[in-house]
Amino acid sequence: MSLPDDLVLPTGGRIVLVVMDGLGGLPRSETGKTELETASTPNLDRLASRAALGLQVPVEHGIAPGSGPGHLALFGYDPVRYNIGRGVLSALGVGFALDHGDIAVRLNLATLDGEGAVADRRAGRPSDDENRRLIAKLRSGVTAPAGVQVFFEPEKEHRAVLVLRGEGLVADVTDTDPQATGVPPARTTAKSDAARRTAEVLQAILDSAFDVLSDEPRANAILARGIDAFHRYPTFMERFHLNALAIARYPMYTGVARLVGMQTHPAQDSDAGSVRALAEQYEGFDFHFIHFKAMDSRGEDGDFDAKVEAIEAVDALVPQIMAKQPDVLVVTGDHSTPAHLRSHSWHPVPILIASRWCRSDASATFGERSCRAGELGIFHAMHIMTLALAHAGRLSKFGA
Amino acid sequence: MSLPDDLVLPTGGRIVLVVMDGLGGLPRSETGKTELETASTPNLDRLASRAALGLQVPVEHGIAPGSGPGHLALFGYDPVRYNIGRGVLSALGVGFALDHGDIAVRLNLATLDGEGAVADRRAGRPSDDENRRLIAKLRSGVTAPAGVQVFFEPEKEHRAVLVLRGEGLVADVTDTDPQATGVPPARTTAKSDAARRTAEVLQAILDSAFDVLSDEPRANAILARGIDAFHRYPTFMERFHLNALAIARYPMYTGVARLVGMQTHPAQDSDAGSVRALAEQYEGFDFHFIHFKAMDSRGEDGDFDAKVEAIEAVDALVPQIMAKQPDVLVVTGDHSTPAHLRSHSWHPVPILIASRWCRSDASATFGERSCRAGELGIFHAMHIMTLALAHAGRLSKFGA
Repeated sequence: MSLPDDLVLPTGGRIVLVVMDGLGGLPRSETGKTELETASTPNLDRLASRAALGLQVPVEHGIAPGSGPGHLALFGYDPVRYNIGRGVLSALGVGFALDHGDIAVRLNLATLDGEGAVADRRAGRPSDDENRRLIAKLRSGVTAPAGVQVFFEPEKEHRAVLVLRGEGLVADVTDTDPQATGVPPARTTAKSDAARRTAEVLQAILDSAFDVLSDEPRANAILARGIDAFHRYPTFMERFHLNALAIARYPMYTGVARLVGMQTHPAQDSDAGSVRALAEQYEGFDFHFIHFKAMDSRGEDGDFDAKVEAIEAVDALVPQIMAKQPDVLVVTGDHSTPAHLRSHSWHPVPILIASRWCRSDASATFGERSCRAGELGIFHAMHIMTLALAHAGRLSKFGA
Repeated sequence: MSLPDDLVLPTGGRIVLVVMDGLGGLPRSETGKTELETASTPNLDRLASRAALGLQVPVEHGIAPGSGPGHLALFGYDPVRYNIGRGVLSALGVGFALDHGDIAVRLNLATLDGEGAVADRRAGRPSDDENRRLIAKLRSGVTAPAGVQVFFEPEKEHRAVLVLRGEGLVADVTDTDPQATGVPPARTTAKSDAARRTAEVLQAILDSAFDVLSDEPRANAILARGIDAFHRYPTFMERFHLNALAIARYPMYTGVARLVGMQTHPAQDSDAGSVRALAEQYEGFDFHFIHFKAMDSRGEDGDFDAKVEAIEAVDALVPQIMAKQPDVLVVTGDHSTPAHLRSHSWHPVPILIASRWCRSDASATFGERSCRAGELGIFHAMHIMTLALAHAGRLSKFGA
C-alpha cells in the first residue's frame, strides 16, 4: 500500500498550486515582522481567512533545500529518496529528451588564463547567441569516444548542458569545476570502481572540448558539475491521475515539472503573462503549477523592501487566478529565502490551502505567525499533494 | 545521502547545548502551572523572547526515555537505532577504555540474607572507599574463564561495572538483578543460541564473585543488569565536524558524551563550577554540552517546589554562559520529570534555540505552553542538532 497513490480517484476538482519562490522570511528587527507579514496582501489575506493554514518543512527541520528538492517535495515526491543532480535538472529545463540511464552534466563556459588557471568561471557572461555559436562549435568539433553518444545543449549566458548516452555509464564521478578562480580545472575521477570508464569517457570529451575552444578569446574552456544519471520518475498521471500543466519563466522549474511528467507551457516574459497562460489553459488540465520567482531573487539580494514588493506584485495577480474558481488553491513556497540571510534557509514555509472544506479562521491573514497557528500545524511538504487531492475530492477512504 | 551529515561545512559559529535534566513537568492543580512555568526565570525568559521555541519529543510520543537515549537524541543520534545498555554507559562514565565488541555490565553490590534472597539491592549504600575495597577484592579473587579477560571497575556507592573481553561474546543474555527484595538473584540465561557461551561465562564469573564476597557482612553479592556490547559510534567530529567538549558532574552524562567522541572536562563540585569550566574552555571548542542535574533529581523526589528552585538556580547561571556570546544557544532537557509523576515521563520537552536567525516572539517566555506556540512546533529531538548546525551556518544547501 502506497499513500496517497493507491487511493487516487480518476475524477475530482481542479487544483492550482501557486509557488512563490523563497516565500518565507525572517523578521526585520525594527518591526518584528517578516517580509510576508510586512507586505500588503489583501487578496492573499482574504483567501487565508477561508483557507487551511500551516507551515511546511520542505525536507527536514534545519535543512535548507535547493530549488530541485524544494519543488519535488511540493509535488509529493520524497526529496531525499528522489534526490537529483543539477545536470539532470538543467537538461530537462532546456527540453532535452533524456532517456533512462543518460548521464547529464551541468557546464559553465569559462575563461582560462595563460597558465591554464580559471580566470572567469562564466567567460564574461556571453550572450545567448554567443552561447549557441560556441555550443554549435563543440557539437561539430568534439570527438565522441567509442560506444558513447554525446549531446551538447545551450542554456542561457554561460550555461550549457552535456549529455552522455551509452551502455554501462555510471554518474559516480567528480566535478571538474573548482568553484574558484586562480586554480586550474580539476580532472574528473571515479568515486567507485564501477564509474572508472565513465570518468575516462567524460575526461576525453572535456579534453577534446578544450582543443576545440582553444582559439576562443574568452570562452576557451568548459567546467563540469552536477553530474547525475537520469532515472525515470513515476509521473503525476501515474501517481495522482492528474493531467498537469507547469507554467514557469525559468528552465529550472519547468525542468523539475517535466521530471514528474507535467506538460510545460512556453515561458512568458512577465508574471502577468504566466497568469494569462493559466487562464487560457485552465479547462484543459486537472492541475496547474504556476511559478513566481522574484521573492527568491530579492531575498538573495538581501533586499527586504524589494522582496516585500515582489510579494505584493504576486498578491495583485491572485484575483485573476481566483476568477477561474479553482476547487483547490494552494499557495506556498519551495523554501524560505530571508533577506537577512541572503540565501535559501531551513525555516518552515507558510502554506494556504483554500477549498470548501477548511477549518478556517476568519481573522487569519497570510503570514508566518498566522500560519503557525493554523489548522495544519507544521508538517512535511511532501504531504501537501495528499492534502490537495483530498480537498479536491480525489482520494478514496483508506481501509474499510 | 545522509542528512544532515553530508551537508556539514568545516567552519561556522560556536554552539552551546544546555541540558536541564528532566526539565519538562506537569501543572500543579492549584495554579495550573508546571514547575518551569512557576519558576522565576528572568534570564531564560529574556532569551525566549528572541529565540526559536518549540517542544521536542525525545524518542516518540508516549515514550519516557532513560538518560542514555534522551541524550543521544539531543546529540543527533536516532535513539532507537543507537540504543545502548546501561552497562556500556556506566563503563564509559567511569572512563573505562572499551574496545569494539566488549560486553559491559552494570553491577550493584547487594546484601543477601541467610536464605540467599536479596535483602538490600544496594548493600546499605557503601562509601566510595568501601566500594573500592570490595572491587579490589573481586579483582584479585575472581577467576576468569578461559579465553576471557575480566575487568571490575568501581563507580560510586553501591555501583560498579564489569567488562568481559574475548572472542565470540554476545550480549544477548538476561539480567540477574531481580529488581526486588525477598527473592534470590536470577541466573543469567541466553536469549539466543549465539549467546549461550556468554551466559555460561558470565554466570561463572558471578558465581566466583559470590564466593569471593561470601565473608562480607553487607556486600556479599553482586547483581548484574544493563548487559550490552560496545559498538563504536560515528563521532561528533566525523558526523558534524565539531570539536566538542562535555561538562557534566555525573559519570553517566560524560559517558554518553564519550560514546559520540566528545572530550570531557573533569567533573566540578558545583553547577557554578561547570559554568566556570565552560567559560575557561570556551574558545578551544566548537561545541559545548553542559549538563545540569538537579531538576531531574528533585522531580524524582516528587518535590515540586525544590524542582522550581533547581530551575531558578540554573536560570541564575545563564548570564555567565551568555557572556561568551555563543552564536547558537540551545536550552532544553533530555526528557520531562514531572514532580507529580516522580519519574521520567513521555511529555514533550521545552526547547529554546537562540541565534540571529529566529522568527521570535517578543512576548514569549520559557515554559511548556509558551514553547507550544513557538516557531518550531513539536518535533523529534534528533533533529535538534540539524537545527543547531543550520543556525550556526554550518550546513550547505541540500540539492541544486
